[in-house]
Amino acid sequence: MSTAVSPLAPPDVPEMPVIAGVRLATAAAGIRYKGRTDVLLALLDKGTTVAGVFTKSKCPSAPVEWCRAKLKGGAARALVVNSGNANAFTGKTGKASTALTAQIAAKAVGCSTSDVFLASTGVIGEPLDATKFDGVLAQLAQTATPDRWMDAAKAIMTTDTFPKVATATVKLGKAKVTINGMAKGAGMIMPDMATMLSFIFTDAPLSASVLQSLLKASVEDTFNALTIDGDTSTSDTLLAFATGAAAANGAPKISRAGDPRLKAFTKAFQQILADLSEQVARDGEGARKLVEVVVEGATTKPSARRIAMSIANSPLVKTAIAGEDANWGRVVMAVGKAGEPANRDKLSISFNGIRVAKSGARDPSYNEKEVSEAMKAPKIQIKVALGLGKAKDRVLTCDLTKEYVAINGDYRS
Amino acid sequence: MSTAVSPLAPPDVPEMPVIAGVRLATAAAGIRYKGRTDVLLALLDKGTTVAGVFTKSKCPSAPVEWCRAKLKGGAARALVVNSGNANAFTGKTGKASTALTAQIAAKAVGCSTSDVFLASTGVIGEPLDATKFDGVLAQLAQTATPDRWMDAAKAIMTTDTFPKVATATVKLGKAKVTINGMAKGAGMIMPDMATMLSFIFTDAPLSASVLQSLLKASVEDTFNALTIDGDTSTSDTLLAFATGAAAANGAPKISRAGDPRLKAFTKAFQQILADLSEQVARDGEGARKLVEVVVEGATTKPSARRIAMSIANSPLVKTAIAGEDANWGRVVMAVGKAGEPANRDKLSISFNGIRVAKSGARDPSYNEKEVSEAMKAPKIQIKVALGLGKAKDRVLTCDLTKEYVAINGDYRS
Repeated sequence: MSTAVSPLAPPDVPEMPVIAGVRLATAAAGIRYKGRTDVLLALLDKGTTVAGVFTKSKCPSAPVEWCRAKLKGGAARALVVNSGNANAFTGKTGKASTALTAQIAAKAVGCSTSDVFLASTGVIGEPLDATKFDGVLAQLAQTATPDRWMDAAKAIMTTDTFPKVATATVKLGKAKVTINGMAKGAGMIMPDMATMLSFIFTDAPLSASVLQSLLKASVEDTFNALTIDGDTSTSDTLLAFATGAAAANGAPKISRAGDPRLKAFTKAFQQILADLSEQVARDGEGARKLVEVVVEGATTKPSARRIAMSIANSPLVKTAIAGEDANWGRVVMAVGKAGEPANRDKLSISFNGIRVAKSGARDPSYNEKEVSEAMKAPKIQIKVALGLGKAKDRVLTCDLTKEYVAINGDYRS
Repeated sequence: MSTAVSPLAPPDVPEMPVIAGVRLATAAAGIRYKGRTDVLLALLDKGTTVAGVFTKSKCPSAPVEWCRAKLKGGAARALVVNSGNANAFTGKTGKASTALTAQIAAKAVGCSTSDVFLASTGVIGEPLDATKFDGVLAQLAQTATPDRWMDAAKAIMTTDTFPKVATATVKLGKAKVTINGMAKGAGMIMPDMATMLSFIFTDAPLSASVLQSLLKASVEDTFNALTIDGDTSTSDTLLAFATGAAAANGAPKISRAGDPRLKAFTKAFQQILADLSEQVARDGEGARKLVEVVVEGATTKPSARRIAMSIANSPLVKTAIAGEDANWGRVVMAVGKAGEPANRDKLSISFNGIRVAKSGARDPSYNEKEVSEAMKAPKIQIKVALGLGKAKDRVLTCDLTKEYVAINGDYRS
């Protein structure tokens, strides 16, 4: 939909290794877009476990409701993702559409519909014609291969300007295991969880409950610490799949969340989520600056989070960043409106390490020229020191530009 | 600051009558702007009572703190307002600056500093040089006249594109009393209360406590039901002054909030606040559409308010309106993210009276062409029927345009 790649796109795209037990295929099913792929089928070997976290929207999409229900089984054999239509606010038609998609997928893959997971992204409120998957999914099941990670990441894009992938290889016991992840943004992004679809795959032999614990813990400071526009999608879906194939190489089966052997894996897993969520911020609609908001000296971490989110969601702060203006007055405004403990006369504020305000007033040593130069950087860190306690938190966002308005002013038409 | 007047500006500007006991004068003190007035002095006769409501920001401006403290006396003799500098986040300098301004004003007027009220609007975080008022206020006190309402409304503007005034004449007992009001917006506007400065004047003989009750009750569905960008100013100030001069014409002195003789006055007072707050919405930064969000069928009024605010503050809804797109999917999203009771399958959504969604899906009778035509109107009503209860609420906002970003991307520099 967008034409130019975000200037904040990471320069290097990792080589995505295969993950034993996962095969991928994509197609152009003509859901909405012309001339591009819009369906992803991921085939998962028998024994694959699954975990998921979803939007907290009170009006979730039909696929979110589908996944929530199927997650109880803890097993997955197929993931079907389409872009172009979110199948959200589509009433009974939407529910029927998920059931039909799952039937078509189950038949193509040779599994139960309970083992099929679904995600849809795109326009809300338009019926999704699931018959378009008929034939397509059967063909994809035949042609899926283990190496199509970039194709997969591209097929799930909507207003994204670049595909988002991340990978890590780490030891579990004495065996090497791999984690691959992909995500799509790029607007309507605000916890909990951040919009978007994200899918994580590993060959580590983890029980569904271990995977769920891992996901829940890892999302807090990654996808849930990310906001583009403060808007929460009806379709936010993060699914993780563990094929267990690495057991053949001697990886131990993990069935307890606190298992100490998980330490390195947990770190790598969280790093994948952090990497993907930063890529989503880097591809925020119309984004020209990646913005990291750090709040320290808060009374509690949730308080620091709320203040950081208040800053990160403020249109006035975001437009100031777009204008390369170190407008700390607006940061003060955003601290003040958060409703959290704050003492104006103890506040300090820095932009990219240059302190512009301290003790409730302009820092006398602050050099406007130096700050103006610093504001030209593609990454801006806003640091607020509250001076009240020891808690801190960090949130990622991007600036608010005319391009955001342009992208969203004629998205549907 | 902005050059073109908002296309949503009211076509008719009322003739502002004099209010016995109030005299006004303005000057160009060179606070920040060149070639325009930036200071207002309102002189109030002895016996004038005062009431006020202010921002709930945890980092309020120095003038807000000044007014809060002085309100306890309940009496006012002078109001000094400057534009161009908000005197917010200016630390001890800010406090000293308010004290010095009040001293200069008290001397010019011949009253106690306790009877001087102050408001400042403009850039945050820059020290306000109160010595600029020296001489200026004395001269204004000499030259103030009862008829300068439009001049006054202009002097307090920042990014406003038109001055905002309203007036009403109503019976109190058997005497005619007058209410005049003025306000300035136009960004950083979100309850509680909405940003901006607003000042109401009447010759009705009301005690300070009656005036305070009236103000508190009237603000709830007017200024507090208004949002431009979800950002709350550090400087939100709404002050009301009652000179009591109409007592000379036989208006009864009112000293009890529930006094039945206040009925017509209360209605007119609320109407003034409603009128001014709508004008603020009509002059939202970059606004091209006035947007009224009505939520009905809610379980409670606060719940309806939170859902209405969620819709009114959603960048995706606001950009869709800017694009003249009846994107009810984004309205669903905003309902869902409010976290309030909502049942997707009972939701109905209309734009300017045309129902586009009902019972959780697209309204089958909905005609895209008809809706597209309706979306071209300068005023858009989004109505959401939740189908849960009987409570309803209404919020005013405006669309989010590229001009908003342009205005706020280089406001400070």
